[in-house]
Amino acid sequence: MKVDGQNIRPIWLDSDLKKVKVIDQRLLPHEFLVADLKTVDDVIRAIKEMVVRGAPLIGVTAAYGVYLAALNSPTDPVEDAYLIEECIRLKSARPTAVNLAWAVDEILSEMLKVGDASEKVDAARKEAEKIAEAEAENCRRIGAHGFSLIDKISRSKKGKTVNLLTHCNAGWLACIEYGTATAPIYAAFDNGIDIHVWVDETRPLNQGARLTAWELGKYGIKHTIITDNAGGHLMQHDMVDMVIVGTDRTTFTGDVANKIGTYLKALAAKDNNIPFYVALPSSTFDWKLRDGVRDIPIETRNPDEVRYVQGLDRGDIRHVLITPADSPAQNFAFDVTPSRLITGFITERGVCRASEKEILRLFPEKKKS
Amino acid sequence: MKVDGQNIRPIWLDSDLKKVKVIDQRLLPHEFLVADLKTVDDVIRAIKEMVVRGAPLIGVTAAYGVYLAALNSPTDPVEDAYLIEECIRLKSARPTAVNLAWAVDEILSEMLKVGDASEKVDAARKEAEKIAEAEAENCRRIGAHGFSLIDKISRSKKGKTVNLLTHCNAGWLACIEYGTATAPIYAAFDNGIDIHVWVDETRPLNQGARLTAWELGKYGIKHTIITDNAGGHLMQHDMVDMVIVGTDRTTFTGDVANKIGTYLKALAAKDNNIPFYVALPSSTFDWKLRDGVRDIPIETRNPDEVRYVQGLDRGDIRHVLITPADSPAQNFAFDVTPSRLITGFITERGVCRASEKEILRLFPEKKKS
Repeated sequence: MKVDGQNIRPIWLDSDLKKVKVIDQRLLPHEFLVADLKTVDDVIRAIKEMVVRGAPLIGVTAAYGVYLAALNSPTDPVEDAYLIEECIRLKSARPTAVNLAWAVDEILSEMLKVGDASEKVDAARKEAEKIAEAEAENCRRIGAHGFSLIDKISRSKKGKTVNLLTHCNAGWLACIEYGTATAPIYAAFDNGIDIHVWVDETRPLNQGARLTAWELGKYGIKHTIITDNAGGHLMQHDMVDMVIVGTDRTTFTGDVANKIGTYLKALAAKDNNIPFYVALPSSTFDWKLRDGVRDIPIETRNPDEVRYVQGLDRGDIRHVLITPADSPAQNFAFDVTPSRLITGFITERGVCRASEKEILRLFPEKKKS
Repeated sequence: MKVDGQNIRPIWLDSDLKKVKVIDQRLLPHEFLVADLKTVDDVIRAIKEMVVRGAPLIGVTAAYGVYLAALNSPTDPVEDAYLIEECIRLKSARPTAVNLAWAVDEILSEMLKVGDASEKVDAARKEAEKIAEAEAENCRRIGAHGFSLIDKISRSKKGKTVNLLTHCNAGWLACIEYGTATAPIYAAFDNGIDIHVWVDETRPLNQGARLTAWELGKYGIKHTIITDNAGGHLMQHDMVDMVIVGTDRTTFTGDVANKIGTYLKALAAKDNNIPFYVALPSSTFDWKLRDGVRDIPIETRNPDEVRYVQGLDRGDIRHVLITPADSPAQNFAFDVTPSRLITGFITERGVCRASEKEILRLFPEKKKS
């Protein structure tokens, strides 16, 4: 996507084919820094510490991690046992996003098909690039399908500003291009629809206030940052026409694990008859899980992410303690929104209701015989 | 309440009877500072800038403001027109808490009954002290009534930890003693019930993470700070037995204006069949308003309270910018929880449902003839 006139993605392979380059998303919007990932350990650390984040991007980064594993193999030819071991390590970097395991397994199966070391390395690179391009293309399609929903609201409001609300960052930073939740927003903006986005801050790591606001600002889209507490009030007072969020894992029955707090916004949307959409590439579907609230593993992260807040003070990025020094905190990274609260899914194949039947209508190849 | 072995209240009249002393709640938990209020302007500024906050405390501070108005009268005898003018200024300091107008009107009507200057000053002081004592006593009674609700849960859990969740600070810092939402919590703790409190951070000003956590910690009560986003997840997973919050204004039909985000927690409690109680002294009832969502005025505050976060870094209190420098924010201070989402009210006269009929059963003198 364009940032200050330059096209950029959150991840790319360096021209020497030895380093994976990623935007360090921990420092935005205050600093724009590109980090080098050279080893599987670098990749795991980048995923764990959220240098990269967002389900599709985690998948693509892990895919490049498999490539780096092959590239840095201690043996020649690359041993399958080594590769499988590295893939297991990569898959355990974070528990909730299903794209991680999906992307690693995709690429591993391609590599196990070919023989010698250079073939394996080539296969890994091509497959990682293929996954990245596929995610970008999926997001483009999500944008096209979601656009018609926003366009419809705009027409019903006779061209008056369409107010969207989003939680966390399901933007291009979380994907490769366009984003998932933001793809329809970018498409609407590109097509001249008058839109305004309420951006949930998204504590504890403020991906909304830091990343979504930055993305939208750089694209020139009107937006306003609000606390995570404010969305219900806005919805009670007709200040939100549609909610769009992303997802980190989606059951085939339509339950959605997304950034903690998504469930609260879905409840408020339901209570105020406001459409609540989840935008997702099919790589975030978990075709095995039926009951999201019960079965999707929810990551708990370092409590200091709650106790401290990062921000800019006189040019320096600082971490300030906001709690009493001796008060404990707990840090749940995701929650699960049950399908009954979701108006619909916006996928690369079109829009459908959040139900097993409708999902399988769009993805018939996933039907169990 | 006891802090490090010393009894303290958030507000008191200095022994010289010329200064009102208040704990500066903007600096807690990092600094404990007592500020002097000497004039009506000092009082208005303290209320506006949230040196003092919380509906009952705002009322008591404003009451002392009327006392300071009389004390600092430019004329002797004190002119009624001057007093009325100062009272109007005091009442406009913040729009949502109804206690502010209520306390000022109470005290003004007492003062208008007496004649000369020293009588007016005396009447004002006595009435302000009376209001403060009444609020303390109301909170004590709220504690006693609310205790039986927690005790019942504890018995049904056979003594296992009772998990409470609260939003913002409706503790003794917001009142005079005990607090409203915290009064049942302190009473349960004093009576040996095993309790644990989930403390919502409460963005933007973090009254939960800063003040409630500090209060509970000083009292030795087990608590855990969570983001405002986390409560829904906890409730989905049986980690909350009861929600208790305060209120800044309550319609006689049972709608509750409280810190922004309260409505989202009420929705989650309803969705998970968890009791959601509001603790309130009758001074927060607005006996004129029927429809809370439509008619309670919601304060919007400085957007920089959203864009910046205050915290401690290497011994200094700093304000760090968390958003892009050029992204706008909006700052709604309260939202309204409709009565249908509220299990009950805990008042100084007992527990009742959040309905006009039940409220008037407890407060029959408010029935319109």
